Amino acid sequence: MTARTLVDGVPCDTLSVLDRGLSYGDGLFETVRVFGDRAPLWSRHMARLAEGGRRLAIPVPAPDALWHEVLAVIAGMAEAVVRITVTRGIGQRGYAPPGEPVPARIVAAFPMPTPDSRLAAEGLRLRVCDLRLAAQPVLAGLKHLNRLEQVLARAEWNDPSIHEGLLLDAEGRVVCATMSNVFAVIGGTVVTPSVVRCGVAGVARAEVLAAWQGVQVRDLALDELHSAQEVFLASSVRGILPVQAVGDKVFAPGPVARAMQRHWRALGFPLELA
Amino acid sequence: MTARTLVDGVPCDTLSVLDRGLSYGDGLFETVRVFGDRAPLWSRHMARLAEGGRRLAIPVPAPDALWHEVLAVIAGMAEAVVRITVTRGIGQRGYAPPGEPVPARIVAAFPMPTPDSRLAAEGLRLRVCDLRLAAQPVLAGLKHLNRLEQVLARAEWNDPSIHEGLLLDAEGRVVCATMSNVFAVIGGTVVTPSVVRCGVAGVARAEVLAAWQGVQVRDLALDELHSAQEVFLASSVRGILPVQAVGDKVFAPGPVARAMQRHWRALGFPLELA
Repeated sequence: MTARTLVDGVPCDTLSVLDRGLSYGDGLFETVRVFGDRAPLWSRHMARLAEGGRRLAIPVPAPDALWHEVLAVIAGMAEAVVRITVTRGIGQRGYAPPGEPVPARIVAAFPMPTPDSRLAAEGLRLRVCDLRLAAQPVLAGLKHLNRLEQVLARAEWNDPSIHEGLLLDAEGRVVCATMSNVFAVIGGTVVTPSVVRCGVAGVARAEVLAAWQGVQVRDLALDELHSAQEVFLASSVRGILPVQAVGDKVFAPGPVARAMQRHWRALGFPLELA
Repeated sequence: MTARTLVDGVPCDTLSVLDRGLSYGDGLFETVRVFGDRAPLWSRHMARLAEGGRRLAIPVPAPDALWHEVLAVIAGMAEAVVRITVTRGIGQRGYAPPGEPVPARIVAAFPMPTPDSRLAAEGLRLRVCDLRLAAQPVLAGLKHLNRLEQVLARAEWNDPSIHEGLLLDAEGRVVCATMSNVFAVIGGTVVTPSVVRCGVAGVARAEVLAAWQGVQVRDLALDELHSAQEVFLASSVRGILPVQAVGDKVFAPGPVARAMQRHWRALGFPLELA
């Protein structure tokens, strides 16, 4: 894998093995789609990073300084996926966080995966993952570095005709997908699962909540999802993607997903995704 | 913090920023107390690492090769705490684990913390942490790199007269402490909480289970712990330590803890801990 990386602002591709990001997953990250010198969801990424820093008591870098580093790592790339990682830095051995942490920050540019316009048009096929997300309110919503649940869920399938995995909690409620948030249109109302017990509060989810009036954020049982008129996913990297199947249950791309795809284009995202 | 470190067998103190151990906490670790050229619980550490590798599908190094590296990093140290970290290595961006992972291994020697013989004699004072451990059976028992719960629990107190934090699950059952396992003597029977829903299956816990006949591994409510005749902790680094208080509830060091401390000495651990 090739990537251009800055560590604490300096071109570098390694980090101390004593960093708490590695030792304990003690940190946060953001995955930002950038094209040219634009990242339409940047302010939402920075808001989530700040919220994560507040909740984990990790000082996070100023957005302007980070943006400067993003521009440096993407120089010469027409588009890229930029991962920003902020850890609590090096501390004494043991879980106790240092009283005066010196966070580490990593800004890494990856090639943008080739978008599949057919998926944006026809929709994704999802499996329902066997893994159930654990309820941990103090971490719910955050994009932190403890992501073994997502790794194990994504390891459940290799079939390339399955595009994403739907994640339920221990009570069987729909939470999100492995790398995107879920929306369903039920009785004419747009619904997205609450992420206060588990799951990630995606920046694309936040954009949909701001752009579409009256979205209900609430618990959503799998049976109820099955009854939806349409289902779609929201991802900071992949945008708005309709769902054509959840297991054996088939859906058609619907008008809300199409409207949100148009909104994504209006935000300035490239056209090729839909 | 100073530490002598080997990365993949070579003296080195950094790791790729693209390593999945950092990106997702996708890996395992062991914290081994070593003195001279001995580590009495070594085979238990290696058994747990192998079990973790099996459950997470991460190939783990052969114990003999690891032991060779342990001896290299502790050369010249009378005693040390050696942390062994095994990650899934570098992969493509995204949660999907590589089909043929090339794991990274880090072996790091830290100075052994000065043992406090008074604590071994008189016991530790514990707080009951506010944080509740989330139930995640697919990860329970493993010493994996997703340790934000422990970090946040340990961040709950700064008072040096509090020595450890007791962790409950969402239903209020006792699970373990932030860095040790818990045993209680209740009605004459030794009880330790099950760690099949959450918590770490410590190697010192495994040693107690092997050394003491008839330990009950089962659910343990906090009220029931309060009714115990004695309570003690087991840790691979700190050995067997009686508990003198859980919050306001006071205990006296009891005969089972003393017997287990004698057992620890018989295993060859240095005398100064009790």
